[in-house]
Amino acid sequence: MRSAVMRNSRFFVEEVPTPQPGPGQVLVKVRACGICGSDLHMFNHFPQMIDKAAELGAPVDEMRRSLHEGVVLGHEFVAEIVGFGEGPEGALKIGDRVCSMPFVLKDGVPALLGSTPETPGAYSEYMVLSAPLLVKVDEALPDEAAALTEPLGIAIHAVSKAELKEGDVAVVMGCGPIGLAVAAVLKVRGVDVILASDLSPRRRDLALTQGATEVIDGRTASPFARAAELAPGRRLVVFENTGAAGMLHRLVLEAPAGSKIIVTGIAPGEENFIPMVAISKELTFQFVIYYTAEEFTEALHLLQDGAINWQPLITGTVGLDGVEGAFTALGDPEAHAKILINPWSDAHV
Amino acid sequence: MRSAVMRNSRFFVEEVPTPQPGPGQVLVKVRACGICGSDLHMFNHFPQMIDKAAELGAPVDEMRRSLHEGVVLGHEFVAEIVGFGEGPEGALKIGDRVCSMPFVLKDGVPALLGSTPETPGAYSEYMVLSAPLLVKVDEALPDEAAALTEPLGIAIHAVSKAELKEGDVAVVMGCGPIGLAVAAVLKVRGVDVILASDLSPRRRDLALTQGATEVIDGRTASPFARAAELAPGRRLVVFENTGAAGMLHRLVLEAPAGSKIIVTGIAPGEENFIPMVAISKELTFQFVIYYTAEEFTEALHLLQDGAINWQPLITGTVGLDGVEGAFTALGDPEAHAKILINPWSDAHV
Repeated sequence: MRSAVMRNSRFFVEEVPTPQPGPGQVLVKVRACGICGSDLHMFNHFPQMIDKAAELGAPVDEMRRSLHEGVVLGHEFVAEIVGFGEGPEGALKIGDRVCSMPFVLKDGVPALLGSTPETPGAYSEYMVLSAPLLVKVDEALPDEAAALTEPLGIAIHAVSKAELKEGDVAVVMGCGPIGLAVAAVLKVRGVDVILASDLSPRRRDLALTQGATEVIDGRTASPFARAAELAPGRRLVVFENTGAAGMLHRLVLEAPAGSKIIVTGIAPGEENFIPMVAISKELTFQFVIYYTAEEFTEALHLLQDGAINWQPLITGTVGLDGVEGAFTALGDPEAHAKILINPWSDAHV
Repeated sequence: MRSAVMRNSRFFVEEVPTPQPGPGQVLVKVRACGICGSDLHMFNHFPQMIDKAAELGAPVDEMRRSLHEGVVLGHEFVAEIVGFGEGPEGALKIGDRVCSMPFVLKDGVPALLGSTPETPGAYSEYMVLSAPLLVKVDEALPDEAAALTEPLGIAIHAVSKAELKEGDVAVVMGCGPIGLAVAAVLKVRGVDVILASDLSPRRRDLALTQGATEVIDGRTASPFARAAELAPGRRLVVFENTGAAGMLHRLVLEAPAGSKIIVTGIAPGEENFIPMVAISKELTFQFVIYYTAEEFTEALHLLQDGAINWQPLITGTVGLDGVEGAFTALGDPEAHAKILINPWSDAHV
């Protein structure tokens, strides 16, 4: 089968043996896989991430090996079951489409897909998944929508961790795929003021399709000033999805007293801020990652129920040979939001 | 009357006119006032605090004027009513002892006591308070205990903001007066594992008198390792009361996944940390300051109900002439925890 292997910060489309499903595993044919911001981050910064981890005293031998031997990324996928390993098949059968949390169980322990040469992800024609982690996809849901289950799960988790209260006003900083999904979930949760801020006009337009009640160009206006005008006295829950250097410091200075700040964006390296200001405003910072199994399943159900206007989010599809070009294209927020990989296509963007 | 005036980072005991209570105000005779860590901070770092505020674009003219003209600190007090201004006396009468949140109302707007030359605090024989903010102290409660109402209110607020759940394990970083009060409140709230960490043996001994179930010398052991041994799998709620430079960075690295960190300690200047680590652990930071009126009143009630073992906390009393010496003495955690000022005494430490 063909896989797009990331090795030493380049992509190589290679012919590799199709994996065999072991006990409790299934072989699936990948139908669509989204390119995640964390994939971009790993592509652009993997050597620096390894250096940083080493500096912190973390074991990095496995990471170095993955950098040089190569890994197959891809954890936002929908796939079709084509074979079963040993063990009970349960309710699933050949031809079913499934999503999965991005882990395979190795002796019962979850290993992250796409993190080592031994746990290839979905930038590939086929892959192996663990049967207990599979969630069946309804026939009516297009592959393109099902592939959004994973990032939507991140957004559901972020909003859940925010523990919204009646009357909260939401500010969404950064309208990449996670920020857009956060806006969509906030709308589903009934939040009546959702201010979305992004430097890109296209991203702001997309935010309006996802549930933002108003969009703001961070260069010329402040979402905090606008919130104070629109909804004076109401608590702000700020979702920081940019991961931009200096953003946490800026939020400490600019967010009003009592704000809760949910951080999904991963700033590289160290960040600084002034604790005295955070204390005088009684700010809360909640850092979040991933989701629970329930939240992952809820994401698929929201898509299946038609609660998410997912069509505008998908701005392009590429085949495996188009992956490196897609990574370059995603550098321009005016050009793209979410690009899907269809390993059976020969499309480029 | 005599007041201890802080001017240009020195104390001067001066004869000043006794203030006259205006409408809605009362004149009180100060019976005891605690020296707060924030008073020490202001004494040691006021010029740098002003520079920092200016750097952030805050208005600092009033702060500069306060530095040079002098302010009377003191916001942890119990006092006796000796006169009323115009307006209804309500239930209070001459001779009643009262505590108050550290504000006076100026045209209905609260102004912080001890922040400007016009709002003198309790390092003085007499002061003026606002009648609506007074809380009457039971006759049976000694002055020394009543003067602890304010810092205990801070601790009640910090614990309340932590939103403790059944089974949470508490780690108290830093056993100064606030850390000690936090330990006491955690005990009142029924937390069964309270690990208190401090570099000073005396402070650790004090923590055991306040509710810590075990104390740790941060130089030789980790409260996080100990919590993992004693109560594996339970969520940690960490109270950071040291305000030490680098402590937030250290907590991001050392606290286990899912920890909630309540920050009462005010680190001077900027602090840095690694967001990627905070995100991968889903840490929460809740910065806190002050208390609500209900929490302030609850603090006094806990003291009156005998729920707080307050006697060990008070390690010395000084008169106004002893204030500067007390500030020096409080630099040594082995020597003192809370020193009270009795403006009618001539004691020194």
